[in-house]
Amino acid sequence: MTQPDNSHPDAGSDTVGSVHELAVLSRIFPLLPAATAATVGPGDDAAVMAAPDGRFVVTTDMMVHGPDFRFAWSTGHDLGWKAAASNLADVAAMGARPTGLVVAIAATRDTPVTLLEDIARGLRDACAELAPGCGVVGGDLSVSDTFTLAITAFGDLEGRAPVLRSGARPGDTLALCGDAGVSATGLKLLFSDAVTHDGRPDHVRAQRLRQDHPRAVGAQLAPRPPIASGVAAALAGATAMLDVSDGLALDARRIASASGVAIALNRASLGDDPDTALRGGEDHALLATFPPGRALPEGFRVIGSVTDGDGVTVDGEPVAGVLGWDPYEGWNGGTG
Amino acid sequence: MTQPDNSHPDAGSDTVGSVHELAVLSRIFPLLPAATAATVGPGDDAAVMAAPDGRFVVTTDMMVHGPDFRFAWSTGHDLGWKAAASNLADVAAMGARPTGLVVAIAATRDTPVTLLEDIARGLRDACAELAPGCGVVGGDLSVSDTFTLAITAFGDLEGRAPVLRSGARPGDTLALCGDAGVSATGLKLLFSDAVTHDGRPDHVRAQRLRQDHPRAVGAQLAPRPPIASGVAAALAGATAMLDVSDGLALDARRIASASGVAIALNRASLGDDPDTALRGGEDHALLATFPPGRALPEGFRVIGSVTDGDGVTVDGEPVAGVLGWDPYEGWNGGTG
Repeated sequence: MTQPDNSHPDAGSDTVGSVHELAVLSRIFPLLPAATAATVGPGDDAAVMAAPDGRFVVTTDMMVHGPDFRFAWSTGHDLGWKAAASNLADVAAMGARPTGLVVAIAATRDTPVTLLEDIARGLRDACAELAPGCGVVGGDLSVSDTFTLAITAFGDLEGRAPVLRSGARPGDTLALCGDAGVSATGLKLLFSDAVTHDGRPDHVRAQRLRQDHPRAVGAQLAPRPPIASGVAAALAGATAMLDVSDGLALDARRIASASGVAIALNRASLGDDPDTALRGGEDHALLATFPPGRALPEGFRVIGSVTDGDGVTVDGEPVAGVLGWDPYEGWNGGTG
Repeated sequence: MTQPDNSHPDAGSDTVGSVHELAVLSRIFPLLPAATAATVGPGDDAAVMAAPDGRFVVTTDMMVHGPDFRFAWSTGHDLGWKAAASNLADVAAMGARPTGLVVAIAATRDTPVTLLEDIARGLRDACAELAPGCGVVGGDLSVSDTFTLAITAFGDLEGRAPVLRSGARPGDTLALCGDAGVSATGLKLLFSDAVTHDGRPDHVRAQRLRQDHPRAVGAQLAPRPPIASGVAAALAGATAMLDVSDGLALDARRIASASGVAIALNRASLGDDPDTALRGGEDHALLATFPPGRALPEGFRVIGSVTDGDGVTVDGEPVAGVLGWDPYEGWNGGTG
């Protein structure tokens, strides 16, 4: 009864370079979530997905070791979770229900197969929690010197019009569902406290940091965007929406530019650390505009308004300087 | 009148690391092919694609510098072309008409922006020639130490059942549309004659080799699979189909295994170099089975038959040894 789970006692020694691709895939496939909309799943030249609406939503994203994540900080489960969550958020931001993912992984030869299994479990758990019924319908496994993951996500509009960035109108209410700046706070902590003296990401320090700051570090390594709120916002008549990946200032400006309007943010509604909320990304909160007086769906809170003009202001002052924040910029992808 | 095209006189000096992502994208976007099925194209959180059939076909693939291609051998145009062609072939092999692509690129910092422009032109030209109306509906641009390209392709079944690998029945005719072994011959030539004395891929030697052997080297670097023949095969009643990416022997075995049948190949129908045809991949020809006596669509030729049993034979002899052939295996992705 005190034995650890040794059902794969030799799993730790198998790597992508030492095990045949088919054997690797046979270990990963059973862990992947099934998609209820898949009429032909993985295993043929292509999958076939149901799109009863006569349209489908599609978004793609690549995550590269170095610029986008570090295995010293992220577990395989974190990586699979974040890859799913960030792409599901893009689908949700169109007002669609996520239905499926395809996942291509290029792994280094020394990657333990158990790490790929953990990525699969992360994909599975994120789909189960954030978008039940959504699953992995296809994929590809390659070898690379740089661990890279590419995700494409699909969604069903269920007969609704997509909620674009371009529909905001003067007089609309600006509302946010989800966190702003929490993930960026976690990333700041990781860069300051989870690196060695010479600045290399460190696994032990990261684990300790995560225990001490579970909310912020967890938001950075395994975000929980409010996926179901995308459909709720569409049903409530949202006029424009996006998921906040680069900070409120930059992403609000995207709505303003696409819609030909100005956006006025209220600093008091941006929480304890408004500057981090404005410039910190990766929370994947949903930022949406609603017609004036409309009841907001659960989870959305008013943080500003839409007016005539252009650009983004906070308490009437234009947002100055660099809008987004990318501390990974310039890091060497080969280490950590 | 003797001036070269210098409309971007400084283009050669701009790199992914020196130019802001938005400026790079503004140069690439106009070059990408538009998709007639896109109701919302690139620029929002996700694209919206028409799927009038109520289903869509989807396949994904990653191409990694080193294992999958070398810039010493491939131009950007070749790479974009091959990325499109190989994924369009997977869509075609389901009996579907390709409708759209999403493309994620992770480029090294020293990548000239002009190379990305050439990739976009390759995607455009491949779609125009192989699958008119198919276009790029979304993408992502990242930075990596290893140049990597991930493509996801979509297709429309236009009301037909997908042609799976599992539908071959004893008595069916086995037929091939496209080349077998030509791309592998080109790759052999590149490995023998387009490398330096110490085995590094060499640009000048590759250019000369391509002039001397345009068909074989061209088939390897920029294949022209018979995309439209996938729909034609479906309309003609194909019972099983796939695109030959790993050689006839291995891919015929995939149909045999999925269908629970044996496949008998005729050596005399495999061209001048049957062994290369059997083991050489990447031509992306379409291998299909048809009910006995059925008239074959244009371009398909009989190369064998389906019988009771299992496995693959050539003139009655089981195919022995390693079925596929992957000379890139073990190459270092960082050079060439």
